[in-house]
Amino acid sequence: RLDLLAHCVSGPLLVSHGPHVRWACGFSGSNGWLLLRDGKAHLLTDARYREQASQQVGPKVDLVVTQDPLAEALAPLVAHHGTLSVQDACLTLAQSKSITALVSGLTLHATGDTVERLVAVKTQEQVDTIVRAQRISEAVLEQVSGRITVGMSEQQIAAELVYGCLRRGAQRMAFEPIVASGPNSALPHARPTERVWQSGEPLLIDMGCVVDGYASDMTRMLHAGVPSDAFGDAYDSVRAAQEAAVVAAKPGADAAHVDSAARRLLQAAGLGEQFSHGLGHGIGLETHEWPRLSGQVDYTIPADCVVTIEPGVYLPGLWGIRIEDMIWVRHGEAERLTNTPADLRIV
Amino acid sequence: RLDLLAHCVSGPLLVSHGPHVRWACGFSGSNGWLLLRDGKAHLLTDARYREQASQQVGPKVDLVVTQDPLAEALAPLVAHHGTLSVQDACLTLAQSKSITALVSGLTLHATGDTVERLVAVKTQEQVDTIVRAQRISEAVLEQVSGRITVGMSEQQIAAELVYGCLRRGAQRMAFEPIVASGPNSALPHARPTERVWQSGEPLLIDMGCVVDGYASDMTRMLHAGVPSDAFGDAYDSVRAAQEAAVVAAKPGADAAHVDSAARRLLQAAGLGEQFSHGLGHGIGLETHEWPRLSGQVDYTIPADCVVTIEPGVYLPGLWGIRIEDMIWVRHGEAERLTNTPADLRIV
Repeated sequence: RLDLLAHCVSGPLLVSHGPHVRWACGFSGSNGWLLLRDGKAHLLTDARYREQASQQVGPKVDLVVTQDPLAEALAPLVAHHGTLSVQDACLTLAQSKSITALVSGLTLHATGDTVERLVAVKTQEQVDTIVRAQRISEAVLEQVSGRITVGMSEQQIAAELVYGCLRRGAQRMAFEPIVASGPNSALPHARPTERVWQSGEPLLIDMGCVVDGYASDMTRMLHAGVPSDAFGDAYDSVRAAQEAAVVAAKPGADAAHVDSAARRLLQAAGLGEQFSHGLGHGIGLETHEWPRLSGQVDYTIPADCVVTIEPGVYLPGLWGIRIEDMIWVRHGEAERLTNTPADLRIV
Repeated sequence: RLDLLAHCVSGPLLVSHGPHVRWACGFSGSNGWLLLRDGKAHLLTDARYREQASQQVGPKVDLVVTQDPLAEALAPLVAHHGTLSVQDACLTLAQSKSITALVSGLTLHATGDTVERLVAVKTQEQVDTIVRAQRISEAVLEQVSGRITVGMSEQQIAAELVYGCLRRGAQRMAFEPIVASGPNSALPHARPTERVWQSGEPLLIDMGCVVDGYASDMTRMLHAGVPSDAFGDAYDSVRAAQEAAVVAAKPGADAAHVDSAARRLLQAAGLGEQFSHGLGHGIGLETHEWPRLSGQVDYTIPADCVVTIEPGVYLPGLWGIRIEDMIWVRHGEAERLTNTPADLRIV
């Protein structure tokens, strides 16, 4: 991976975004910059991480431990270069200024999404780790779904989901689970509240956990009692839209085209306006990674990236529906990483 | 708070850091910029947050909902100003470039820690919220401490802590709890592992949760059986150091002086080298806020800020000790916000 990175830019490159540092050299501490220059890799960190860094990065990476801000340790290493490529979407304005203030004549080159695009392409081993996180989520959702009843609050249900994942060895949740009952399900970014799940209502659960740094993400719907025809029809439409997008998600496909594969079906069902967000996102060491699947982006998706496909429809004040799977985009057929059936679960 | 902000800089000010946007105008969504100019406040966000923003910000703030990147919605609002003050420690290089590319002739002024310093000063109501989070942590630590035994893994214990906090109404954890047994306690930033707590070993628990956006933070030590004299003596030294720092934490005190009040005592006990990190940090809408208490900073601490005081000593391969309370720095005597006794709990 160090070689991959070194080949994608000319001149020295500073990787400053934590998950990308981890991807490139294995270091998972909270304070680390990776510098690649002249065929060598240097990891800059502070004394708290000396032991951890030396265990994680291996002999090919030179370890620079400093008590000073990382920019000061960086300066002498790039002093004789005229340019430094940086991750402009992650580096702060203050960090970039401290670097250029310390190295006279240095020009910073923006790498844009160059590193993100490398990180998006997954190996079998990385996908296996995502799947381990996903299997924990699935086991917990299955167990909790069998136990929850109307009369429980969203917060109580969320607590059971988190507890289950941690008990099964997840390092942490990938994000605060969304547990949204009744009209709360119409809020795409709902947070669990004290609201109690009631008879005749849907329950939306969007959850994921982290194993060895890699995240999982899934959304499933329950319903307390038999749903209305309108709800059932909308559910079928969202499910069909999701399937259509999975089929469209091929290596080299336009991300916007994958989004529209789902959106067209929902528009045909009269639900286009209610699908108010993008279709999905890459996932890996971060829950939200490149590539974003949306009508507003202009790139193709690479082979071997892992993305979520999560169309939804939201009727404010009434209910919402979202179905989310993870897929591994492959030549031939995409591999669905989510095992939990996407049927509406009637409780 | 909008007035406070407007008075601390001349010309228009962009608040882009989420917790500071929330502090200033109440908006808690993940995508929002607050612009203050000409005596007016504008909140820029996207369509997902239209309803939430209109509920949270009140009539004094003009709501700008956009489908475009926030920089594009910002541009016309600052087009007739020559300068814009920005949070250089939060704004990314890419964001700053997109702003200046859209508004010709605009100069960005770095605000440094101006906003952080305002946010550090807490009202009674904000402190009450921190205390509510802290009381949840304390009840959970008390309950879990009474139940855990040697033979449980760090991960199992951490799962109980998280579950307890969520069950008692915490919105989420302030950070992944640290549960570190035996030699793992010598790692200041340990993460819970599968390691099992064994007889004769210390157990370090560092935990906090979030209520209404505000975080709590506390560290306490347990010991399975009676500790060695060396451990007991070191524990007494850390506790005395902690007390000394609490006494020194007065409005107007140098942050470095508060740090050294604790450090001197540990040095006198021959443990100065083992106290390998700073003394503490501000806490509020973020778990780590300004002011940092450390020998490496050069500022005084203001009245009414809330800080942690958390000296520790770490003997690699053997054990570590840390005691952490939150205090509200006040004229007269600091108010200790932590109720859990700081005694070593023998299990």
